Amino acid sequence: MAIPPALSDCDSIALASGGLDSSTVLAIAKDQGYRPLPLAFRYGQRHEVELECVTRVAEALELPEPLILDLPYSAIGGSALLGEGEIPPEPGDGAQNRDHIPSTYVPARNLVFLSLAVAAAEARGVRDIWIGVNSLDYSGYPDCRPEFLESFLRTIHLGTRDGSGADQQGEPYWRLQAPLAQMSKADIVLKATELNFDLSLTHSCYAPTEDGSACGICDSCGLRKRGFEEAGVEDPTRYAENG
Amino acid sequence: MAIPPALSDCDSIALASGGLDSSTVLAIAKDQGYRPLPLAFRYGQRHEVELECVTRVAEALELPEPLILDLPYSAIGGSALLGEGEIPPEPGDGAQNRDHIPSTYVPARNLVFLSLAVAAAEARGVRDIWIGVNSLDYSGYPDCRPEFLESFLRTIHLGTRDGSGADQQGEPYWRLQAPLAQMSKADIVLKATELNFDLSLTHSCYAPTEDGSACGICDSCGLRKRGFEEAGVEDPTRYAENG
Repeated sequence: MAIPPALSDCDSIALASGGLDSSTVLAIAKDQGYRPLPLAFRYGQRHEVELECVTRVAEALELPEPLILDLPYSAIGGSALLGEGEIPPEPGDGAQNRDHIPSTYVPARNLVFLSLAVAAAEARGVRDIWIGVNSLDYSGYPDCRPEFLESFLRTIHLGTRDGSGADQQGEPYWRLQAPLAQMSKADIVLKATELNFDLSLTHSCYAPTEDGSACGICDSCGLRKRGFEEAGVEDPTRYAENG
Repeated sequence: MAIPPALSDCDSIALASGGLDSSTVLAIAKDQGYRPLPLAFRYGQRHEVELECVTRVAEALELPEPLILDLPYSAIGGSALLGEGEIPPEPGDGAQNRDHIPSTYVPARNLVFLSLAVAAAEARGVRDIWIGVNSLDYSGYPDCRPEFLESFLRTIHLGTRDGSGADQQGEPYWRLQAPLAQMSKADIVLKATELNFDLSLTHSCYAPTEDGSACGICDSCGLRKRGFEEAGVEDPTRYAENG
């Protein structure tokens, strides 16, 4: 099947949410000489502003126009991030809180997103998948853990056309690139700053106000705020007044 | 998030394509006392007649109304099963042909379908996923191999809310039910016949004619035809005249 020309102009696929982490991954990939296709999803999230951020970030980094896929998560159900319920405030406490899975967990989200990234990569003949997970300052989602990613990598080598063998150098075909894996939120802020990447283009809040301000109190805002504080970098985020 | 009541009336999720294999799995699951929710996908396949078959089969077996999810495979690309190209005739030769991956392979399809099945199961609090793969008479797809399924199972235990621990009996949380795994196409035809399941409700052809007849020459038709022949069961399939 023909691949739309604009979308084959890439050498890798990067999961992109418009947030601080995945946007910094795009900047890191570019800095390493890659040209990732940002892959984002419209899945009924209440914070659709993130899709605008993905596009702005891709433009700023001169990357290919993002591929935005519609996913029927509303029919699948099961998360406070979707639909009408309240987002309970759960100020980020990262590593101290690893046994708690928050209500904002979306069922199997990284599994689904990564699987579609693999499909998009296989269709384009590229082998690198970039993902912005970090296991130090994370929100307690099981699908961000390194052991999950390692097992996923083994699975796709067994279950894809391109993964059934190694390449000519005997290397495994697929590569999951998770450059933030061992970084704290502060490390990520510092890395973005070092790369002159404008973090004001990014968006992290789970429950933005109508004018697009971050709430300042959700788990994601909490992690982000503390990252800037610990990095000693001025936070360009526009927070709502009660945040 | 509230789950639509009609969709929570299940104790498991079953990948359903309307074909001979997955439909027989539904009959087997019902016979074992399960009430699976059939999960099907509208992904730009040219043989959308399969979705009608999923609904007919679910009705015949008195199962919940199928959940049919739209998937953006047309934007992902990469298979002769999608889009306009010719389906090359590749008469099924099953086990003799395991090194060849046919052009009808859809990138990472079972990975994507299984991932969404896990999401749907997690949202409903059910733990069994039924899938109609069989590794004896298969079409050479890497994502039908038992080692792929075993690795996928390990991955979802690591990457989901419900899989992070075992259940109260110490059993692994997730179960992939693949009752056809060790069956030939003829075995499957015999099993369906034993269960009084009407295989004329099912559809296997990759390239049906406009009136819904099976082409009789594609890989999938070839495997199906031979299954009936070897089982000594009359084939109720309506084939096009040149098939």
